[in-house]
Amino acid sequence: MVIVPGFRFSAISAGIRKDGRIDTALAVADANATVAGVFTRNLVRAAPVTLAMDRVRSGTARAVLANSGCANACTGQPGFSAAESSTGAVAGALGIDPQSVLPASTGVIGVVLPAARIVDASQALVQGLSADKSDEFARAILTTDRWPKVASKTLSRAGKSATLLAIGKGAGMIHPDVGPPHATMLVFIFTDAEVEQGELQAALEQASDDTFNSCTVDGDTSTNDTVLAFASGVSGLKLDRAELQPALFEVCDVLARSMVKDGEGSEHMVEIRVSGLPDAGSARSVARTVATSLLVKTAIFGRDANWGRLLAAAGRAGVAFDPNLAAIRIGDAEIVKHGLSTGPAAEARASEILRTPEFTIELSLGSGPGSARYLTSDIGHGYIDVNASYRS
Amino acid sequence: MVIVPGFRFSAISAGIRKDGRIDTALAVADANATVAGVFTRNLVRAAPVTLAMDRVRSGTARAVLANSGCANACTGQPGFSAAESSTGAVAGALGIDPQSVLPASTGVIGVVLPAARIVDASQALVQGLSADKSDEFARAILTTDRWPKVASKTLSRAGKSATLLAIGKGAGMIHPDVGPPHATMLVFIFTDAEVEQGELQAALEQASDDTFNSCTVDGDTSTNDTVLAFASGVSGLKLDRAELQPALFEVCDVLARSMVKDGEGSEHMVEIRVSGLPDAGSARSVARTVATSLLVKTAIFGRDANWGRLLAAAGRAGVAFDPNLAAIRIGDAEIVKHGLSTGPAAEARASEILRTPEFTIELSLGSGPGSARYLTSDIGHGYIDVNASYRS
Repeated sequence: MVIVPGFRFSAISAGIRKDGRIDTALAVADANATVAGVFTRNLVRAAPVTLAMDRVRSGTARAVLANSGCANACTGQPGFSAAESSTGAVAGALGIDPQSVLPASTGVIGVVLPAARIVDASQALVQGLSADKSDEFARAILTTDRWPKVASKTLSRAGKSATLLAIGKGAGMIHPDVGPPHATMLVFIFTDAEVEQGELQAALEQASDDTFNSCTVDGDTSTNDTVLAFASGVSGLKLDRAELQPALFEVCDVLARSMVKDGEGSEHMVEIRVSGLPDAGSARSVARTVATSLLVKTAIFGRDANWGRLLAAAGRAGVAFDPNLAAIRIGDAEIVKHGLSTGPAAEARASEILRTPEFTIELSLGSGPGSARYLTSDIGHGYIDVNASYRS
Repeated sequence: MVIVPGFRFSAISAGIRKDGRIDTALAVADANATVAGVFTRNLVRAAPVTLAMDRVRSGTARAVLANSGCANACTGQPGFSAAESSTGAVAGALGIDPQSVLPASTGVIGVVLPAARIVDASQALVQGLSADKSDEFARAILTTDRWPKVASKTLSRAGKSATLLAIGKGAGMIHPDVGPPHATMLVFIFTDAEVEQGELQAALEQASDDTFNSCTVDGDTSTNDTVLAFASGVSGLKLDRAELQPALFEVCDVLARSMVKDGEGSEHMVEIRVSGLPDAGSARSVARTVATSLLVKTAIFGRDANWGRLLAAAGRAGVAFDPNLAAIRIGDAEIVKHGLSTGPAAEARASEILRTPEFTIELSLGSGPGSARYLTSDIGHGYIDVNASYRS
C-alpha cells in the first residue's frame, strides 16, 4: 500500500450497492491541491460529471467523493441535487468549501443517487480517513471489475522524492473519448509533487489520449467517465511537464492494461500495432477499427489466426493503403506477407500464441512513418453473460 | 417458385464446400440483359468483385456465376486467375463472351477458389439450366444462413406485366457500405422489365442505401459484397425510375429484414427509428451508433429495457441534441420522456415486448424533421458460437 504525503483516504458501505459491499470512497488533501480533469465526451453526461467539470475549473480542490452502485446518470435535476447534497454533507463534515469536493459515480444508469445514505454516512466516512487506506478506496469504486486497479511511481531529484499514485476502475464498456458507460472508467491520480495547473492539465490530457483513449473493450463510451489528478506539492519536488509526462503515462498505461485485461468476461489482452501509414492519425483509425471489430474480437476468443478478418477490418477503416503490401504478425509469427498467407507453419505458430493471455498483433501496411497502438480484449461467452444480465 | 421470363437457373455441387452441399450457382439471360451493380466499399476487395466491377461497366451481361464455400479474397494473382478461368469455362459451355459472365464468391477468406472444380462442373451446370430453378440457385449461395432469402414482386400496366425476383444470402457480418465479410452479402435481382441502364444503376444504389446499407449484424463489412440487377426486357413493359424504385425497395427490404433476422445466432430483429434531429444524415448517424452498440445488442439479447444504454449510445454519435428532450419507446411502451424514466409500469410493458422476436425501438431526440431507420439484431451466445469457431 502506497502513502502519498498530503492525502488521506476512507471507504465505507453506505448501502448504495445491493450486495452490501463498500461503495463510497473519499480522498482528501490536507490543503488545497492543484487539480486537473478529463471527462467523458459523451453528450449524455451524468450529474456528477457536470458538477465535477464545473468545480474543477477553479484549478484547486480538496477532496473527491466517489461511489459505486449508482451512476446518477440520466436523472435530471433530482440527480444534480443528489450530487450537490452528498458532496455538501462531506464538505460539512470536513469543514471545507463544498465547491472543493468533486463527485464521481459509477453503476446503473437512470437511478437517482440515494444521497441521504451518503449524508448519513458522511461523519463515519470522514472519521475513517487515513493515509494508509488507498487500497480500500480502490476497492470501493469497483463494479463489474474482477480486481482493483492501482499503479504507482516514485520520482526523485536532489534528495527530494515525489510519488504518483493512480487508482482506477473500469472493465466493461471501456472505449476512448475518455471512456466507458455503466462499468464506467474512473481514474484518480494523487501526487505530492508540485505541478503547475496548466501543465498538470496538459499532461493528463496527453496521458489519457495515449492510454485510456487507446483501449477498447466494447466500443461504447460512458456517461460518467472521469479522470482527475491532484497534486498536493507537499514533497517540495517541482515537476515540469517533461518530467511529469512519462511518469503519468506509465501509471495510466498500467491502469489501462489492467482494465482491458479485466474486460468483462474477456480472456485475452491484445495490443494492436499498426505501422507503415502516412501519418499517426491514419494508423490510429486503422488500429481502432481492427481493435473494435467484433469479428476480430470473436476470432481472438476462438484462438483463430483469422488474418482475413484482420485485413478486412483494416480495409474498412477509411484509410488508403495497398493490401498487396500488407504484412501481419501475431506475436513472432508472420502469417501474412505481401497481402498473402505465408502458409500453415506460421499459422500453426500463431495459433499457439493465440492460446496465451497476452500478445501483440501487428499490421504493417506500407512504408510510411505513421504508427499507432490500441489495446483490446476478446469478446466471448463471458462478455455476453455479464452484459445481457447486468440489470436483472 | 417464381419464373422470370428470359432467365434460367442452375445449381450443382462442384466440391468447393467440404460438406458436399450444392455450392455453385449459375443464372443466365437468354440474350444480353441490362445490368447494374453495387459492390463493397472495403479497400480489401476479393478477386471476383474486382472482375465483376470491371465487367459490369459495359452495361450489359449474360450470366452470373456464384459460389459458396470460398470467398477467393486476399488471394492475389492466383485468385484473379481462378475467377477468370471459372467464368471462362462457363462462358465456353454457354458459347458466349467470357466478359459477359459476372463472378461472385462467398466463404472463407485467404483460400484461392479451386477453379478446376468449377471448370469440370461447367458442362453439367449449363445442362442443368432451367427457368424453374431459382430456388436451387438461392440455396447454393448460402453459407452460415439458416434459410434462403427470396423476394418477388410483379408490376402490371396496360396488359403487360413484369416480375422482379431478388435472391440474396448473408447472415453474419451484415453491415453497410454494401456489406459484410466471410458471411458476405450477395444479392441478385432479375427482372423481365425493360429498364434504361442509368436508371437501373441509380435505382439499385438508392435501394441498397435504404435497405442493405441500413442494417447491421456485427458492424463488419465484407471483401465480397455484391448486389447485381439484371433486366432482360422480354416482358415489353418499360419501367422508369419512379416506377422501379418502390418495387426495388420492396424486394430489397424483404431480403434485408430476412438477413438481419438470420443474423448469426441472433434471436431478435429490431428496427431502430430515430427522429427529431435537424436532418436525415444526423438521424442516420445516431441510428447507426445505437444499432451497432454492443451494449445495446447484448441488452436486447438479455431482454433488458436498458434505456440508459440506448441514450448513452445516442450521446456518443457525434450529433448534437438535448438529452432533456429525449423520448424512447420500445414497441408501444414509452419508457423515457423528457430524458427521464417514465417509471416501472412502462418498463414492465417494454420487457414484455423485448421477449417478442421483432419490435421497434424509437428515439425521439427533438423537434427537427430529420429521421432515419436502421435494422439490427441482438448479440448473444449463438453469435459467439458461430463466430469463434467459423474456421475451425
